[in-house]
Amino acid sequence: MMPSKAVRFRARQVATLATIYHQCLVDAEYGALLEDLGQETLDPWIGASVREAKRERDKAVRVPATLVHEIARTASLAYEAWVQARQESDFETFAPWLRKMTDLKRQEAACLTDDARLPYDALIDIYEPGMTTAQLDPLFEELRPRLAGLLERIMASPRQPKSEVIRGTFPTDQQETFGRMVITAMGFDWEAGRLDRSPHPFCSGLTPFDVRITTRYSEEDFSIAFFGMVHEAGHGLYEQGLDPDRFGLHACEAISLGIHESQSRLWEIFVARSGAFWDHWFEKLRQQFPGQFNTTLHDFLHAVNQVKAGPIRVDADEVTYGLHVILRYEIEKALMEETLEVEDLEQVWNSKMASYLQVTPAHASEGVLQDVHWSHGLIGYFPTYLLGTLYAAQLFRKALDEIGSLQEEIASGHLLSLREWLRQKVHQPGRTRTAEQLIREVTGANLNSEHFLDHLEDKYGRLYAL
Amino acid sequence: MMPSKAVRFRARQVATLATIYHQCLVDAEYGALLEDLGQETLDPWIGASVREAKRERDKAVRVPATLVHEIARTASLAYEAWVQARQESDFETFAPWLRKMTDLKRQEAACLTDDARLPYDALIDIYEPGMTTAQLDPLFEELRPRLAGLLERIMASPRQPKSEVIRGTFPTDQQETFGRMVITAMGFDWEAGRLDRSPHPFCSGLTPFDVRITTRYSEEDFSIAFFGMVHEAGHGLYEQGLDPDRFGLHACEAISLGIHESQSRLWEIFVARSGAFWDHWFEKLRQQFPGQFNTTLHDFLHAVNQVKAGPIRVDADEVTYGLHVILRYEIEKALMEETLEVEDLEQVWNSKMASYLQVTPAHASEGVLQDVHWSHGLIGYFPTYLLGTLYAAQLFRKALDEIGSLQEEIASGHLLSLREWLRQKVHQPGRTRTAEQLIREVTGANLNSEHFLDHLEDKYGRLYAL
Repeated sequence: MMPSKAVRFRARQVATLATIYHQCLVDAEYGALLEDLGQETLDPWIGASVREAKRERDKAVRVPATLVHEIARTASLAYEAWVQARQESDFETFAPWLRKMTDLKRQEAACLTDDARLPYDALIDIYEPGMTTAQLDPLFEELRPRLAGLLERIMASPRQPKSEVIRGTFPTDQQETFGRMVITAMGFDWEAGRLDRSPHPFCSGLTPFDVRITTRYSEEDFSIAFFGMVHEAGHGLYEQGLDPDRFGLHACEAISLGIHESQSRLWEIFVARSGAFWDHWFEKLRQQFPGQFNTTLHDFLHAVNQVKAGPIRVDADEVTYGLHVILRYEIEKALMEETLEVEDLEQVWNSKMASYLQVTPAHASEGVLQDVHWSHGLIGYFPTYLLGTLYAAQLFRKALDEIGSLQEEIASGHLLSLREWLRQKVHQPGRTRTAEQLIREVTGANLNSEHFLDHLEDKYGRLYAL
Repeated sequence: MMPSKAVRFRARQVATLATIYHQCLVDAEYGALLEDLGQETLDPWIGASVREAKRERDKAVRVPATLVHEIARTASLAYEAWVQARQESDFETFAPWLRKMTDLKRQEAACLTDDARLPYDALIDIYEPGMTTAQLDPLFEELRPRLAGLLERIMASPRQPKSEVIRGTFPTDQQETFGRMVITAMGFDWEAGRLDRSPHPFCSGLTPFDVRITTRYSEEDFSIAFFGMVHEAGHGLYEQGLDPDRFGLHACEAISLGIHESQSRLWEIFVARSGAFWDHWFEKLRQQFPGQFNTTLHDFLHAVNQVKAGPIRVDADEVTYGLHVILRYEIEKALMEETLEVEDLEQVWNSKMASYLQVTPAHASEGVLQDVHWSHGLIGYFPTYLLGTLYAAQLFRKALDEIGSLQEEIASGHLLSLREWLRQKVHQPGRTRTAEQLIREVTGANLNSEHFLDHLEDKYGRLYAL
């Protein structure tokens, strides 16, 4: 919403607030008060809040202000270099900045961890508290060949979708109307949130009472805005579902990026891309766009679930998406452990793309330069995208078990008992549980890839007649 | 833009920031640093900034935090009582809260001034620094009979406007399109501002780079949104016109509410309600609304400048508006000087309405309960509305003198040299001048009502053939 010229001054205001906040965090008296609190027996909300407050303060105290400042300064210059490099599709323009950034992030990791052998773990922990390479390595090593194998079988199938059946002309206002109908059915509270438009879709949960989601529209392809809206609304329901009476406590926040992503992916993949969902909504969609979608429900469903290996992560389907993430995970880990040099990065990227996805990027801007994350210093963030899907698969499987009629409800357009289940099981507990505890408590099992792989085999086995 | 449920938590956030800000203001070290600065010879911007910073700090130090808190607490309860009282049109519901609020505001005034005989001056000074009842009393006492006399002559004129010629059906989107055309011609910078919709029109100047204006639309009457937009855009141009390189200094702010209002009123009254303006825009307006405004330019102009005494201030025309303000000024002054008791307020209000405007409010909600200001503790604020018009008349007269071709430019749709003149003379100096200095420096005369009365006599003499 902000006018373009406002950006610079807003950045100064945000920086001022961030500085004041950091000063409060590292304040010695605050630290002493937190230590005192730790000695007392506390209720679970207060106990978890003290734990989270200490965790936050500990990270702030461990990293010297000079390093924080240097990373922020480098990020803003690296971002400019990345924009230019991507425009010119020239990795060499960005490489020196990436080298500097990985160096700074290794320094940051060294501050954050007591175990110098595991720098990448220290960074992952920022976004997914408690998650480690020891857990992720076997998980991703199992997933990689399974996803690549499924992709090969899908590509070899004679039964390919007719992608043209979902193409047409879709006025944005009608797309928005349809999207709002679905989001309303999901139980999004419009008195505590908004839907707007922006170049990059996002969800900002300012408070449980003020959740802003955005999407972008293509007039030729309704699916971009639609699945984007459902995805962001999934994030939004998590924010709106935090306990309103406890909001303000450290424990009354989303647990982690991975758990957050599980809420968006659950609605996007396991609900909105499912056959049951479109049993109800396909006719509604056709009514919204008269003259479009002259096809069967089956062909429509196959078209919105087309699997196609491509070079771009954000355009990837649910089979190939994980491979994009695993590739980045392996590269980040190697960069942090200094077993990969930035000068070899583009070549390693391309060879992994060929091996996992049978894709060769035409140029660096659709290869190693496609994501903004590294320029901002966001290393350790990518794995949470795939973790979200794995968590989502486990949670949805459990929801099906516990709500006996869930598939029938979805097939008749009733989505509120799923939202209620998620609210009670995932949203309301906030950070009184860690991600690991929550998943075990709710699903009865540790994080695993079994349910996600079952889902893929079942769904794509049927769609592609494998 | 904020969803309704977000209001409460946002209020807590704003209160937290206000508390932190107040703590910074009253901090002794900050005070000592300001005192040191005062000893040095400084450039005009720094000198004025130190003066304004001291003024701000002085007010913060003089009023005890307990009183500030009590006023804020009372305001929120008094506002609720006012809402209920207005709904039920029952002054008695609000009277105890107004009594408490006037009592608290007298205490605040006693803290702010060294002259206990002039409590109202201390409150006016909050909104219009340097302005006093000694200046306002003779000004308003001269204006009151002149405005009332003109109103009588207008009401007695046989030549009354045909108000129906501006009625019709005006889709809001087209109203917005037309309004944006005019605001663009005024030189509003859309890269540093927005126009949105809200129940009450406003202008928020967050920075010179981010100015938000709003309006509300009536589908039956285009003039409500249109003149509202021009009014708010006038405020917006002032904010956008502050020196961008000096923004952040105390001196780089709007001078006072009265000077701010002069910028909105200048564009609204002296430009957008003038014959010269519609020489250009009338045809454009008819093109925007095909089939509407089947009338002559003269009849259109008379209809948008209809003078009609009514009970409601915000609906008042430029002749009667001043009388509404003077009535409130006299009442506020008497309340603060304890020559009027709250229990007599409704009766005094009604008798003044009858005497100045020949109007009898049908009930309290269109009389003494119509404005929100007193419930918020905004006493001393009303006079700035009329001051704005007087300043505007003086400034516009001077602009006509200095830009020889201004009327011709306005008549051909060119508004930018007026904006440029205002930017140089009024906006850019910020607070390096007081209101009094600025008006004298720019117009060569002290604040007076001569130009405003000349304008009214000339304009309405012609429209109503007086």
